[in-house]
Amino acid sequence: MNLHEEIEAMGRRAVAAARKLAQLSARRKNSILESMASELDARRDALKAANALDMEAANAAGLSKAMLDRLLLTDSRIDAMIKGIRDVVGLKDPVGQQISKWLRPNGLEIIKIRVPIGVIAMFYESRPNVTADSSILCIKTGNAVILRGGKEAMHSNKAIADALQAGGAAKGLPDNAIQLVGTTDREAIRELVQLEGIVDLAIPRGGEGLIRAVAEHARVPVIKHYKGICYVYVHASADRAMALRIIENAKCQRPGVCNAAEHVLMDAALASEFLPELARMLRARSVELRGDDAARAIVPDLKPATDADWDTEYLDLIMGVKVVQDVDEAIAFINTHGSHHSDAIIATDPAAQRAFTDQVDSATVYVNASTRFTDGAEFGLGAEIGISTDKLHARGPMGLEELTTYKYVIQGSGQIRE
Amino acid sequence: MNLHEEIEAMGRRAVAAARKLAQLSARRKNSILESMASELDARRDALKAANALDMEAANAAGLSKAMLDRLLLTDSRIDAMIKGIRDVVGLKDPVGQQISKWLRPNGLEIIKIRVPIGVIAMFYESRPNVTADSSILCIKTGNAVILRGGKEAMHSNKAIADALQAGGAAKGLPDNAIQLVGTTDREAIRELVQLEGIVDLAIPRGGEGLIRAVAEHARVPVIKHYKGICYVYVHASADRAMALRIIENAKCQRPGVCNAAEHVLMDAALASEFLPELARMLRARSVELRGDDAARAIVPDLKPATDADWDTEYLDLIMGVKVVQDVDEAIAFINTHGSHHSDAIIATDPAAQRAFTDQVDSATVYVNASTRFTDGAEFGLGAEIGISTDKLHARGPMGLEELTTYKYVIQGSGQIRE
Repeated sequence: MNLHEEIEAMGRRAVAAARKLAQLSARRKNSILESMASELDARRDALKAANALDMEAANAAGLSKAMLDRLLLTDSRIDAMIKGIRDVVGLKDPVGQQISKWLRPNGLEIIKIRVPIGVIAMFYESRPNVTADSSILCIKTGNAVILRGGKEAMHSNKAIADALQAGGAAKGLPDNAIQLVGTTDREAIRELVQLEGIVDLAIPRGGEGLIRAVAEHARVPVIKHYKGICYVYVHASADRAMALRIIENAKCQRPGVCNAAEHVLMDAALASEFLPELARMLRARSVELRGDDAARAIVPDLKPATDADWDTEYLDLIMGVKVVQDVDEAIAFINTHGSHHSDAIIATDPAAQRAFTDQVDSATVYVNASTRFTDGAEFGLGAEIGISTDKLHARGPMGLEELTTYKYVIQGSGQIRE
Repeated sequence: MNLHEEIEAMGRRAVAAARKLAQLSARRKNSILESMASELDARRDALKAANALDMEAANAAGLSKAMLDRLLLTDSRIDAMIKGIRDVVGLKDPVGQQISKWLRPNGLEIIKIRVPIGVIAMFYESRPNVTADSSILCIKTGNAVILRGGKEAMHSNKAIADALQAGGAAKGLPDNAIQLVGTTDREAIRELVQLEGIVDLAIPRGGEGLIRAVAEHARVPVIKHYKGICYVYVHASADRAMALRIIENAKCQRPGVCNAAEHVLMDAALASEFLPELARMLRARSVELRGDDAARAIVPDLKPATDADWDTEYLDLIMGVKVVQDVDEAIAFINTHGSHHSDAIIATDPAAQRAFTDQVDSATVYVNASTRFTDGAEFGLGAEIGISTDKLHARGPMGLEELTTYKYVIQGSGQIRE
């Protein structure tokens, strides 16, 4: 078989598995998940041995320290995978849930029911735990999954996927419910995302390069998890102490993640008092501030921001700061330069709050809170497969419900159309 | 400007219009729609004159009678467009609706709100009324629309779009809320569906060739409206008189549409009695029946069905008929050969009904009713922009709600992440 035939065959096996998965009860799926957790626990040594092969190759290839750290599988990371599975067992199964139901005048009863999506192709990079995390969310929601992780994690991913499939099989997981693409050929991704009618959804998670490559060739739906260029806007009516606390948290608590804030806008009316306070606080936290002309007129030793800054996700202790006239300018600026991920207004004025939440076109819009809350766990979803920067079919944190679609079941008593 | 720049500029104008549209109240949008209806009424002569140009060119080009009929704009068709608008005025606006709301332990209030999708690109073929029908559904839901109809209807489409935009503008419709692609260059479609970050959704409606061309080049989400290969399965427990009535309706009432049935499966247990009745009824309705070997063993003068028949949408008075052993075989056959659009079981046995509705992986699954009900109006949605054969983001009939997405608005009081 050539690669095309191989990937198509893999897709067809996944379709067969998905048909069976869709019929499993919540109780059955939970017992499968429990068994997967036990199997991971039982295979710790094998997992670590497989990971050692990956680490050895990665060291030899001279991968960066950060990459090596992402790749490493330790006992505590295996513990976290196992705990992750048990947490998902405790979540409510959305499959089979009745979304709505209505009766037509002709007596037809229309029931809209939540069902699995079908076959999900998951693309990711070097962290091997994503193999487990995404598999369990797919299995809990009755979806078959085809995994394609980073090539540097191939041995680790295979060991984890084997453990999950074996553990699950002992409790009735259909064959091929979890499949790992065996080749590291990038062409495999292209083949997968062109399997219209077989793969129902592709979810790429990783760097922009990976996501763009997937989007470019896809003929199946893709939910993208692009960058977060998140803004915090400080309105003239803001509680300044609150604003400082929120900006500090949004920028510094974990600067390398997508829901960290990158830029601050502030009203001219409070800039002359607030900006010096902000600059002092951020400098104390080692944040480099880059200002527009108006900001630099107030705090002259700010580094000047270039046009490119406002469209940049630093993922680092750097922050842009710009003075605006009012909430309308802030909204327009964020809609143009932000990435529609998470943006916040700090304000006490209800009209400004309302304008901001109505008009900022982002997945998550905050009033008086840190952008760092955009996260499945913080939302109370229990788990997430990622944070969608797309508008369709899911937006923002994707939990279990976002891994389902629906169908209509219509109960009649002989109705025909006149 | 070259075509690429021209289409991108059009897209950016649509984004600006969408931002304004999203802020219009339901009352404002209804007054815009009313004004559009009046303007179409006032411009009847201009519409018919523009249509005459298209008809003349189409006649000269030797288009088929069916094509000419689809292209023709008459007073009664203009009436229907106007009535369509007024019907949509009467429907509830989904935008701004609160989908759900919950409070987190840290006091954050998370509100999931329905919002417009943004910019929708609509591709269609020769019927000029689609220009009005799809525009009004987009405007009602606060979306900007970019229209690209069939080139044979260019004058008619332009006259309709101009009337809608002018009528709307009189009541506050933002400029460029409705834009018609001026060129008939097919390349324009390709440019549009590659406008990631500008076009939020593409909806192609028309022949399979158009839809495939769109899907192949798209980098933006596409909701496809493919064919309907709909099956009716007659279980051993069926009320035979009901089965005959439903099959007659599903096949004959309007054979040229996607929710018409193309094939019948029947249990062997009732085939020897039921099939001759069915053959008699369908022949009386001039339907050509094509049977598998088992069917031809019962009614020998049936034309033999080939393997290709089961994957065929006839859109005509032709029907395939096949004998199966039980509901499991029927389900597997439909999942393999149907197009996941609309399928029905005729049965009195609740276990068979349940197996069928649980396991048939179609947008709409019927028990004891005709497949012809898969339709926005029949569902009570009031209007539809089409019937999705995709699973994401919408499935089955797409009404107003399916032209929206959601965002999260989070109200805090200074919360930061620990």
